[in-house]
Amino acid sequence: MPLHLIRPGEEKGWLATEPCFIPEIQAKHETIFTQGNGYLGQRAALDESYIGQTRNLLVSGTFDRFHESEVTELPNLPDVTNLEIFVNGAQFSMVRGVLESYSRTLNLYTAELTRRIIWQSPDGVRLHMRWQRMVSQDDVHIIAAAVEITPDQDVELRFLSGINCRTTNSGTQHMVEGNARVYDGTLLEYPVQTQQSEIQVVMHSTHRLLLNGELQEQLPKIVPGRRYLGASYTVKVAAGQTVRLEKISSVHTARDFCYAKFTQEKANEYVLEDSLREFRIAAQSSYDALQQCSAQAWQAFWEQQDVQVNGNDPADQLMIRFAIYHLNCMANRQDNRVGIAAKGLSGEGYKGHSFWDTEIFVFPYYLFTQPQAARRLLEYRYLCLKGARKKAKENGFSGAMYPWEAAWIEDGEVTPDWLGIDLVTGEMLPCSTGRLELHVTADVAYAVQEYFQATNDIEFMRSCGYEILIDTAKFWADRLEWNAEKKRYELNHVIGPDEYQVDVNNNIYTNYMVELNLRLGLKALETVRADAVLYKELNERIGLDGLDKLLSSRADQIYLPQADPATGLLPQFDGYFNLKFLDLTKYKNAPRVAEIMKEYNFDMLRQYQAAKQADVVQLLYLRGDLFPEHMQRENYTYYEERTLHDSSLSKAIHSVLASDLNMPQEAYAMFQSAAGTDFGPEPDSCDEGIHSANMGGIWQDVVMGFGGARIWRGKLRFAPHLPESWQSLRYRLHWQGRDLHITVTKNQLRIVNRGSALSFWLYDQNAVLAENSESTFRLEGGELECEKIAVPSLD
Amino acid sequence: MPLHLIRPGEEKGWLATEPCFIPEIQAKHETIFTQGNGYLGQRAALDESYIGQTRNLLVSGTFDRFHESEVTELPNLPDVTNLEIFVNGAQFSMVRGVLESYSRTLNLYTAELTRRIIWQSPDGVRLHMRWQRMVSQDDVHIIAAAVEITPDQDVELRFLSGINCRTTNSGTQHMVEGNARVYDGTLLEYPVQTQQSEIQVVMHSTHRLLLNGELQEQLPKIVPGRRYLGASYTVKVAAGQTVRLEKISSVHTARDFCYAKFTQEKANEYVLEDSLREFRIAAQSSYDALQQCSAQAWQAFWEQQDVQVNGNDPADQLMIRFAIYHLNCMANRQDNRVGIAAKGLSGEGYKGHSFWDTEIFVFPYYLFTQPQAARRLLEYRYLCLKGARKKAKENGFSGAMYPWEAAWIEDGEVTPDWLGIDLVTGEMLPCSTGRLELHVTADVAYAVQEYFQATNDIEFMRSCGYEILIDTAKFWADRLEWNAEKKRYELNHVIGPDEYQVDVNNNIYTNYMVELNLRLGLKALETVRADAVLYKELNERIGLDGLDKLLSSRADQIYLPQADPATGLLPQFDGYFNLKFLDLTKYKNAPRVAEIMKEYNFDMLRQYQAAKQADVVQLLYLRGDLFPEHMQRENYTYYEERTLHDSSLSKAIHSVLASDLNMPQEAYAMFQSAAGTDFGPEPDSCDEGIHSANMGGIWQDVVMGFGGARIWRGKLRFAPHLPESWQSLRYRLHWQGRDLHITVTKNQLRIVNRGSALSFWLYDQNAVLAENSESTFRLEGGELECEKIAVPSLD
Repeated sequence: MPLHLIRPGEEKGWLATEPCFIPEIQAKHETIFTQGNGYLGQRAALDESYIGQTRNLLVSGTFDRFHESEVTELPNLPDVTNLEIFVNGAQFSMVRGVLESYSRTLNLYTAELTRRIIWQSPDGVRLHMRWQRMVSQDDVHIIAAAVEITPDQDVELRFLSGINCRTTNSGTQHMVEGNARVYDGTLLEYPVQTQQSEIQVVMHSTHRLLLNGELQEQLPKIVPGRRYLGASYTVKVAAGQTVRLEKISSVHTARDFCYAKFTQEKANEYVLEDSLREFRIAAQSSYDALQQCSAQAWQAFWEQQDVQVNGNDPADQLMIRFAIYHLNCMANRQDNRVGIAAKGLSGEGYKGHSFWDTEIFVFPYYLFTQPQAARRLLEYRYLCLKGARKKAKENGFSGAMYPWEAAWIEDGEVTPDWLGIDLVTGEMLPCSTGRLELHVTADVAYAVQEYFQATNDIEFMRSCGYEILIDTAKFWADRLEWNAEKKRYELNHVIGPDEYQVDVNNNIYTNYMVELNLRLGLKALETVRADAVLYKELNERIGLDGLDKLLSSRADQIYLPQADPATGLLPQFDGYFNLKFLDLTKYKNAPRVAEIMKEYNFDMLRQYQAAKQADVVQLLYLRGDLFPEHMQRENYTYYEERTLHDSSLSKAIHSVLASDLNMPQEAYAMFQSAAGTDFGPEPDSCDEGIHSANMGGIWQDVVMGFGGARIWRGKLRFAPHLPESWQSLRYRLHWQGRDLHITVTKNQLRIVNRGSALSFWLYDQNAVLAENSESTFRLEGGELECEKIAVPSLD
Repeated sequence: MPLHLIRPGEEKGWLATEPCFIPEIQAKHETIFTQGNGYLGQRAALDESYIGQTRNLLVSGTFDRFHESEVTELPNLPDVTNLEIFVNGAQFSMVRGVLESYSRTLNLYTAELTRRIIWQSPDGVRLHMRWQRMVSQDDVHIIAAAVEITPDQDVELRFLSGINCRTTNSGTQHMVEGNARVYDGTLLEYPVQTQQSEIQVVMHSTHRLLLNGELQEQLPKIVPGRRYLGASYTVKVAAGQTVRLEKISSVHTARDFCYAKFTQEKANEYVLEDSLREFRIAAQSSYDALQQCSAQAWQAFWEQQDVQVNGNDPADQLMIRFAIYHLNCMANRQDNRVGIAAKGLSGEGYKGHSFWDTEIFVFPYYLFTQPQAARRLLEYRYLCLKGARKKAKENGFSGAMYPWEAAWIEDGEVTPDWLGIDLVTGEMLPCSTGRLELHVTADVAYAVQEYFQATNDIEFMRSCGYEILIDTAKFWADRLEWNAEKKRYELNHVIGPDEYQVDVNNNIYTNYMVELNLRLGLKALETVRADAVLYKELNERIGLDGLDKLLSSRADQIYLPQADPATGLLPQFDGYFNLKFLDLTKYKNAPRVAEIMKEYNFDMLRQYQAAKQADVVQLLYLRGDLFPEHMQRENYTYYEERTLHDSSLSKAIHSVLASDLNMPQEAYAMFQSAAGTDFGPEPDSCDEGIHSANMGGIWQDVVMGFGGARIWRGKLRFAPHLPESWQSLRYRLHWQGRDLHITVTKNQLRIVNRGSALSFWLYDQNAVLAENSESTFRLEGGELECEKIAVPSLD
């Protein structure tokens, strides 16, 4: 089991426990213990200060651009987690004195983070200490915390806690201070504005001091400072007494969805009033009351979303729940103006930008469990069309060219200009993904298709979907280059998912996805043409006349690289098989990813078969229907040897494909290894935030790989392949309005169908679920026997 | 002795030693151990990271304004002091493991800061460790450091060191990243620009690794990151071996004086090339060689500037040298475009702005020891006339109204709009000093007069001085208000030096200083009129015609508050004696200043006789010739009781005046107390930087108070009053081209005069020094007997 740092706790499968405090790996645990509700994310930096700590409070959509030489990013908002304790005047720190015991636990079921320690101060006072922390799932603006201390001798304790606006994005400051204020001697208000986008943000905090459970009247000493407003409580605590300090905080911004219809000026004005009024209500509450409301919301969530694994390694259950927990923390389900960031709301990495990770890696989770959330994500891409058209135009093309990195809906491309220092030459490396990594546009179209198949949501297609499909197809039609000699359309100078191969021609993943996008555009055009009103509207907006001819000529004549007849191998791009082989063992076994970049820069890597992630494997996963199974297996094996898995997107997809190819050991190993990227023992693997795509990947591994759920030729398919060490797997899926409860065991598939009758694939055979029924399919022996009983309908 | 934290070291009077490491008071010691050369200042934050640390690298003149809601400030440049050590993988920190011994010493003579510890790591490795650090006085751009480690068992050590651009001004980021670069695998280059003023800054660092004294060829592993460029060295060190890592760094900016005549665009371009070329030379050197060059420059300085005290408390000698050390660190003597900041270059406090502190508190030191440096400071004010005229105009006046806070020469007023939170009401307090604290304009004129008296530098007066005197007088003439009833000019709605009394009428300090300024303007006008060419030039530029009548009417009719005939007490401002008395004992004895603000806000303080510093005492010091001694003594006693000394400007002036008034015990107590403001045991007294004015104040206490040197009625005066516990005092003065060596003992004053004959005051009697002579005056018994011998001339 890869989790030797994070251990499953006693309450099997729900508790993740950090058994000891290791200052050097704080960042990793700050990330994986992040709390959030989709509106905000708060890293689990410890309350008191430590070297190496990164406090992050990120609110979705609040993008700001520090300087014209940088790109917009999700700013780090003022911190409310910091709470310093002074024991007889000396600052408490677990690295000083004697830490007799330590444990920190995230309860995934209640989303509460607690820490318990017994600590002896350098001057010999022994203290039992407990911290609690929550981010409300009930009222998304609320953050609360509590600390409880019982000393073994009389002691003077001082608590210093407040709102700290000194936090930055690794040194970049986005916040302009407003006029701080203290109400009633205790309620702290700290308004700030983002410096370029001028979004008003308002922070509030207040405290409750309790001694042996009794609320104290004591007002704090106010501690003002530059970019800081604190409250200090000094309490004399007798031996055996318990002092408890609770802190209730809130964050509101002018980007909150409730202000979507107002001008920014008005929104900036309103949020100042509204936030104080709302906070005054929360400030009347207590930590326990707020946590109870939040836990109830989480409970309802888990009833819908939980995936249950019964296997030999308890980490498996924990990891899938951890993934679902994070998928729930990162998506703002109410707001269609925000995407899902590559690191969710758990860190500064990738600046809060959205990549193809959303559509290809996390989207399936929302699609199959919360179709409304999936729709919001596609609406976000619809609202991003403006920026996508801007990008197309800037690059000399028509249609919609989605940004490689997306932020606020109107921003267009926000990929940074520079990648970092080339460790071989010492010079700065320009970043070309924004210009060359095109496939994201086709990936969005792919997700629109998936959404429509899984939901039949025609209303969405008419208001958003068709326009996306047609305008992206239009872009491709313009971008493709005609090769007169070979009489085909080619796609040259691109980067595929494998970003180690910069500027290649006819990347196989991209070309196949583009072909699909062109066909989806054509089909959309056909559907729209049948509706005169819709056609007129769209034609006026984006121009449809004559487009069908254009698109079909491209779809029919685009170059789709074929397998080498001799070997059955698909070429990653033009000339791939001419590249030199490189033994990657050393880099694959390195403790950190991207070790190869220290010896080979991009110019050198071009000469080798060394992939960050395998484009061919990714293609086989998404368009597997085009390639026979034996060809898939050969290509999987060939490319896996040449893949470093230096992208967190890599292993999870390998796992699903390995399940498909009936390679359960390989699939299970890849799953555990993928899950280990974030939850495993490697110390710095997710310092800058959780790998959102990997969270979606873990879910896909379990539900779509082991569980075998998939959209296959337009219908739902089940083709379970449980790992050897698993006895059963239970999950829930939404499909075209139905609520399906699936239980997979070694030899059975049981499906409870709440909804209308459904025809589906069981492996490669047709099968049927009756309306409101429970069906059990025997998986052994080829023959699929089925028993059915009726279940009550949902209505 | 107030210095129980900083102890004088063995080498009496030169070494300041911090005997133990107390994390809670790092800030204070970072400030007082700051190293600098007037061009740059570097706080003494420890090499490895600690909570509570503030790394500051400030370069004079590089002002930047973060946002229009803030004022310009001296930005914190990228840090080169940070050097982390990993012992067998675990990060070294003195708060972990066992710190067996610790001492950090600043050698004021060589300006080198060293730290020695013996430390046992948590896993039992015992290490002897020594750090050295320098800021070059020889080449002002150079910063260097070294660390030496000898383990008692075989160990793997890793050093991580580089250029860190994540540093901020308490969270405010002024730096925009440029393109970092590594040359030759080892030379780090980090260019940044200030974000609003667009000043190019270039940082360089390189390292030398030595094992048992032998230079190692090993190239570092480069560690790039956002706003960070590091080099990592991993070394296996056997028991008893000594590993040493040296780091040589440099900072260059487009504001450097050598670029003064170029456009900013050109300067930004040149500094990139020049800095690399220059650094490549320094990079060839070693720590020891660089430190030796710097120490030689310091040695030459001390030969000129040292003040020697022979007293019972060794702290006295240390404190005066400490003050001189800091006065030397804070002044950029080459560059007349920069002033002296209220905190020098030792911290972020007061944002690098210059106040009246310069002219009234630190200026006398430069005037009497380095007249060229004093001239640069006045040239700075001359160049600031543009901003002063802008401020006058904005406020509806003519002439030059100096900014209360000054930054870059063209900026004009840069006082912030807000003072902070009113601890009584919880609301933000607007800051009115920029509008109301007017006396700085007269203080500048006062310093011009002092400079001319001490130097006879007519060239300066013609090119700068007269224009300052006349244009400031012009401002006052316009600003004064005619009281028709009382037939006098009044100055209403002002703040005097006592900032607890906001918006008062006829502040006594201000009115008297304004009268002097008006008379100085008149006299300047007279002198200028005698020179037709100069008159024409100035008349064209600022308009002189008719000014004499205007100025003399104001000078003759300005209201100069007189002492109450009954009590002999001078009123601080109109209605002062009607205010209520408040017993200040509690606040005066509080461990921190400004404790009164927690109970009394400005509105409440208006009703009480409670001064931050005493305006009357300040006036008696500067214009003592107007008030008889008995009146001075009565007023001193009366106001001292009503003064909180919450300003660092307060106590030193009390000490000088107490010396004047022949109250040696009071003078000595005030001196030690003033020196303790920065160097004493109070933990947070100078966290945000050294009190520049207090450094000047300490020097004034010793040389002008105890030493009794003063300009009196246009001539030099000596009126020594040694503290009882002092046996002798030696100092050196420049006076009108002469170099005077003064030795004061209990009953003798010995003066070596290198220069022409000089008539001076000895107490209130006329005395004479012959040309190139050594004269000894007996101080006992009223009669001043004098012995003279000839000394060689300087030429």
